[in-house]
Amino acid sequence: MTSTLASWNDGAARQAVVEFVERTVSDAVPVEERVAVFDNDGTLWCEKPMPIQLDFILRRLVEMAEAKPELRDQQPWRAAYERDYGWLGALMTEHYAGDDSNVRVLAAGILAAFEGISVEDFEAQSDAFLHTARHPTLDRGYLECAYAPMVELLGFLEANGFSNYIASGGGRDFMRPISQELYGIPRERVIGSSSTLDYTSDGRGGTITHRAEADYLDDGAQKPIRIWSRTGRRPILAVGNSNGDIPMLDFTRHQDKRFLSLLVLHDDGEREFDYTSGAEQALEKAGTSGWTVVSIKDDWTTVF
Amino acid sequence: MTSTLASWNDGAARQAVVEFVERTVSDAVPVEERVAVFDNDGTLWCEKPMPIQLDFILRRLVEMAEAKPELRDQQPWRAAYERDYGWLGALMTEHYAGDDSNVRVLAAGILAAFEGISVEDFEAQSDAFLHTARHPTLDRGYLECAYAPMVELLGFLEANGFSNYIASGGGRDFMRPISQELYGIPRERVIGSSSTLDYTSDGRGGTITHRAEADYLDDGAQKPIRIWSRTGRRPILAVGNSNGDIPMLDFTRHQDKRFLSLLVLHDDGEREFDYTSGAEQALEKAGTSGWTVVSIKDDWTTVF
Repeated sequence: MTSTLASWNDGAARQAVVEFVERTVSDAVPVEERVAVFDNDGTLWCEKPMPIQLDFILRRLVEMAEAKPELRDQQPWRAAYERDYGWLGALMTEHYAGDDSNVRVLAAGILAAFEGISVEDFEAQSDAFLHTARHPTLDRGYLECAYAPMVELLGFLEANGFSNYIASGGGRDFMRPISQELYGIPRERVIGSSSTLDYTSDGRGGTITHRAEADYLDDGAQKPIRIWSRTGRRPILAVGNSNGDIPMLDFTRHQDKRFLSLLVLHDDGEREFDYTSGAEQALEKAGTSGWTVVSIKDDWTTVF
Repeated sequence: MTSTLASWNDGAARQAVVEFVERTVSDAVPVEERVAVFDNDGTLWCEKPMPIQLDFILRRLVEMAEAKPELRDQQPWRAAYERDYGWLGALMTEHYAGDDSNVRVLAAGILAAFEGISVEDFEAQSDAFLHTARHPTLDRGYLECAYAPMVELLGFLEANGFSNYIASGGGRDFMRPISQELYGIPRERVIGSSSTLDYTSDGRGGTITHRAEADYLDDGAQKPIRIWSRTGRRPILAVGNSNGDIPMLDFTRHQDKRFLSLLVLHDDGEREFDYTSGAEQALEKAGTSGWTVVSIKDDWTTVF
């Protein structure tokens, strides 16, 4: 097992993982119960300076503003077109202060940006973006922004009979085209946010298209609900990194069997990013709930 | 392969199935693309004189009316309590005539019947019901109401690398406790209707409970949408039996690869039931769309 988690230092986090997996196998936990769920942004790949999908969306808004000049006077197209990251930053500050008026403006823009697109075309765009776009500061392509120790962990779990799922606040159909290639997670095991969809028959198989309306945001209390809806099970292992993962980590607690909840701590400004904003309550809860904190700085020999 | 589909007569339907599966294997269609979707009521198990889940619900309404006498004056509890199948029958007639006012009354009662129940308790009730209740006319338990030729077909597909999913208008969480035992379909591959769910944390893992509000009804155009949402794929094989399956059968059409759509025809009043009500358009469309009709009378040597 040493070589399997080669990018993990031999500390408490690695020991907790190895011990948990060994016990799962030696206790002969039925394979169908070995369900592991992973948040994506900030857990499996990096989310700073902005979530990767937000970059994808901003580029689409710019395209729209280029095609339709009148959009340039209107948020969120204006901020995207003028690369006004101040507006986006202020929006997050307002959000933490309890004011979501600009979050709603951005959300409406995002939904409008993909209105009417077929699920196949949406995936083709996401796939092309992820295979070509580069991270703004890390000097690597987005598909090289997955954390190597996490990819090792996914492989280690799979080799021991686990089924790994992504339970992300990000878009389900944004991640699906690359989940197998990047994480070894098949597309049917990607749970994420989605807009409402329409189906139109046409005698050639029909088309599923995006409506400009959110179906659900897979974050917070929606995470356990969506995990249950998809898998019909309470996971025995969960990994997250932010306040939105608290209910998922809570849901992974069993009264009658072993479980493991991991919380990734971004404390490595040199190799990745150093922040706890948006994770304050999760970090506080880790201590009282018996979650294992994974320090990027101390627990990982390499990040990417 | 003869012994595999032993309950199928050697007619056009069986030949279409065997040829399709053989070609899928000899063409080396990637295993992950071998997605097969099955309606449940009237396709995998019988749905007359009423859907099995409706019996489950009516018993719950009776229980409620026994506990709270004032409910006995109010529909749908009154019809359930008085075993007034006339009211339920009239409701379906009204529905087909375009009047859904009593359908809404029934739906509201159904949702109220399970309000606040945890998903675990709901499954325990469904599981107990399905393992003990008997079909009203067929002289067999409900778990013996699955069609033997369909169970064979599921096994034949699985043996050839297919992933079978249930895409039913019935309740997802109603079917999950028995899907593995009855059909060999694991719970995470059951797609069906669901009420909206809540998650409440409690420091012991939290609870997911039913809200008295439909999330979606997995029928008609929702079937392709829910199949896509769950699997991220267009299936290559679909089996249905009613008008509500038309979009799913349509969605299974590919321009660039082989596919198979099957429509079960209930034409055997002796061994099962003889009806086309609710399937008129589907049967009409079968001819023009190249769907293979499976006649219970002619294609199956045994039904159960």
